[in-house]
Amino acid sequence: MSLTKYQFRAQFRCTNESCGKTYPLHQVIYSCESCGELLNVEHDIDSLKQVSAKEWKSEFESRFRSSQFPNASGVWGKKEWVLPGISDENIITSGEGTSHLYDASRFAKDLGLSSLHVKQCGVSHTGSFKDLGMTVLVSQVNQMIADGVPIKAVACASTGDTSAALASYAAKAGIPSIILLPANKVSTAQLIQPVSNGALVLALETDFDGCMAVVKELTKEKSIYLANSMNSLRIEGQKTISVEITQQLGWKVPDWIVIPGGNLGNVSALGMGFEMMLELGLIDKLPRIILAQAKNASPLYESYKKGFADFSPVTAEKTLASAIQIGDPVSVKKAIRVLKKFNGVVEVATEEELANAAARGDLYGLYNDPHTGVALAALLKSVESGVVKKGESVVVISTANGLKFTEFKLAFHEGKIPNIDEKLKNRIQACKPTLEGVMEILGNQLKKS
Amino acid sequence: MSLTKYQFRAQFRCTNESCGKTYPLHQVIYSCESCGELLNVEHDIDSLKQVSAKEWKSEFESRFRSSQFPNASGVWGKKEWVLPGISDENIITSGEGTSHLYDASRFAKDLGLSSLHVKQCGVSHTGSFKDLGMTVLVSQVNQMIADGVPIKAVACASTGDTSAALASYAAKAGIPSIILLPANKVSTAQLIQPVSNGALVLALETDFDGCMAVVKELTKEKSIYLANSMNSLRIEGQKTISVEITQQLGWKVPDWIVIPGGNLGNVSALGMGFEMMLELGLIDKLPRIILAQAKNASPLYESYKKGFADFSPVTAEKTLASAIQIGDPVSVKKAIRVLKKFNGVVEVATEEELANAAARGDLYGLYNDPHTGVALAALLKSVESGVVKKGESVVVISTANGLKFTEFKLAFHEGKIPNIDEKLKNRIQACKPTLEGVMEILGNQLKKS
Repeated sequence: MSLTKYQFRAQFRCTNESCGKTYPLHQVIYSCESCGELLNVEHDIDSLKQVSAKEWKSEFESRFRSSQFPNASGVWGKKEWVLPGISDENIITSGEGTSHLYDASRFAKDLGLSSLHVKQCGVSHTGSFKDLGMTVLVSQVNQMIADGVPIKAVACASTGDTSAALASYAAKAGIPSIILLPANKVSTAQLIQPVSNGALVLALETDFDGCMAVVKELTKEKSIYLANSMNSLRIEGQKTISVEITQQLGWKVPDWIVIPGGNLGNVSALGMGFEMMLELGLIDKLPRIILAQAKNASPLYESYKKGFADFSPVTAEKTLASAIQIGDPVSVKKAIRVLKKFNGVVEVATEEELANAAARGDLYGLYNDPHTGVALAALLKSVESGVVKKGESVVVISTANGLKFTEFKLAFHEGKIPNIDEKLKNRIQACKPTLEGVMEILGNQLKKS
Repeated sequence: MSLTKYQFRAQFRCTNESCGKTYPLHQVIYSCESCGELLNVEHDIDSLKQVSAKEWKSEFESRFRSSQFPNASGVWGKKEWVLPGISDENIITSGEGTSHLYDASRFAKDLGLSSLHVKQCGVSHTGSFKDLGMTVLVSQVNQMIADGVPIKAVACASTGDTSAALASYAAKAGIPSIILLPANKVSTAQLIQPVSNGALVLALETDFDGCMAVVKELTKEKSIYLANSMNSLRIEGQKTISVEITQQLGWKVPDWIVIPGGNLGNVSALGMGFEMMLELGLIDKLPRIILAQAKNASPLYESYKKGFADFSPVTAEKTLASAIQIGDPVSVKKAIRVLKKFNGVVEVATEEELANAAARGDLYGLYNDPHTGVALAALLKSVESGVVKKGESVVVISTANGLKFTEFKLAFHEGKIPNIDEKLKNRIQACKPTLEGVMEILGNQLKKS
């Protein structure tokens, strides 16, 4: 099927409904010039509706299996829903998306669920879900440079996954990247991905907010493009996760999706993906969402308990789930809108709860990072409380690769995290170098789960 | 298309041609009872030939990344070529295979190649190509248990990727796994994946060979199944990489494939995949192969220089490419046969060459582990020497995820690896926390590559 006869369009629109000002996607802009609110990418839904739901499904399925550029990417296989105006030759892709939907069937059985799947967004080029959005942002910048917009570099303030994704995609494109981070608060190990990818990595004698302030100043000049998550182009890539999950479940919507949340851009993207599918008729209901926060950084949970009546930023305390250690989330308004619409729940996980849940999941073959631990802990608590009912179907979003968190895994099994469940700990056991030595230890330890 | 009308069969056959004894795949056996040589899985090619090359291609394409179990796996989407007799319900899959074929187009241009792709086998469930073979081995064990074979556990001697893959797939299946490793030579960090997955991890007061000896003793009893690479079931999964690469290139065979080699099972698998495609008419030529060894562990290179006239094991010296630090490779005979048939070349990389090549590749957006560094270094030397000619097409096999090798990346950029190319080093730069501070450093550093 060829969709070339249709003309699809998208633009930026201010998220403040009483403003609603629009801007073209090739404009260097991150928030509304008129009212200062964040922007969304708005698609011309009428043009998308010219294609039937059945045709979209069939098209997405055939592209998902494609080995050809750019459809080998799960994001660019949905180009019309993401960034319809880009020329293929300017797309910078590293095969993001199409991550495996891990069927944790033994875990599901033990919890009494009809199914439990884990969407493995960390099994990705730079090891986190950030690739989904960064391919869109860097590709759009590449398009703008090709069109003569004088952009010299892309920049972000970040201490983790965002900088890794930005540096890698920028390196692929041959566009310089700049990473600002707070000096003395981040180790070289945490930044070794962007350092390896040749980014200009600058350590500023200030805190993270200070770095954000400088990068906003820096990108005002417009020759340096801002890649932080207030840039809504990234949301467009991230929302494809909803389509992928649904497709991987045979176009069935699960009862629940559990997703960890810090800056709250990802849950906003998740919601927008499902809303778009609903509007275009690919699905006929929305899943419910459990937004999982680390208890040490849970401003949205506080707001949720009051029915989202108001929202107050907090000072986030230290948490093992470092990527969501955020007290004043950028995308809070978008996230609350989505949670209200999806009959959502916010749940929190303490440090020991997230560590135990990650370790418990590992015993079913996973290798969970602490953020996935937060999501799994929220699921366990929701099953326990009866919010999630026996026989329901659940998808958990795993946002990053456990291989990025060796210290966390070591700390757990070496007993350095307080109050954890001792039964979940495992250790290397000394053994005599003989058959008898091994058999002695084996003894009664072997039984099929 | 349904292939259910056909009957496909496979069995073990002794690789010693003058012996050739055969065994059923559900037998617990790892080497020939009669002559002691390794076994291959032999497919009934005549039954496979009942399906045309065009039909196989179409079938493989339609199954690639299918969202339906078990075809979402790149390995099980080729089930008839891998393990035709297994029942789907006994397959243990974590979405192995279908890894991205990274188009390093800027790198290709700089080298004068028509194309350079990197097959990202490390972007996988446990972070290495070992998943491809382990899904087959654990699934077959699961089938045998279902059929009443009294297997109580799976075991291997391993200090790295094999143990990670075994523990994860066994955990998914609910089958106990046992890992033997030399005490005091391996850190908990290196084994944290199998520790997390609940394997019984035993540290023996001996060296690696001592562990291999004990695990062979242990698995003689047949209730504990051997998962080391002398078990040829793993090769069946690994060989699907050849089909995937060719499919991802639009069924075009590249001029060259570069693959790192230690125990040499992987290059054997690569060769067998291409031979099977040639025999069944999916391709009409074979690629040439560059087998890349670390100079510190290069017994095959010594043999190659003498036209493979003979082969002598060596004592491997320490190398950053730790997974291929092997002086007496198990699959050397299989590998030499393949290299002769594929007009192959063996090349070596010194420690600084592999480190430089990994770092150079990172500047194009990759994040290379040291083994991929060995392969890239071999490519660079082969381009330099003219063995690989301008305008040729190359695929490099990346065997593991760079995220497993943070120490290696840090050592490079912190200048702790001797004799490296200083120009490839990058560092975090101190910067004043102001726009002026950043602009001062930016100065002339920004230019588009």
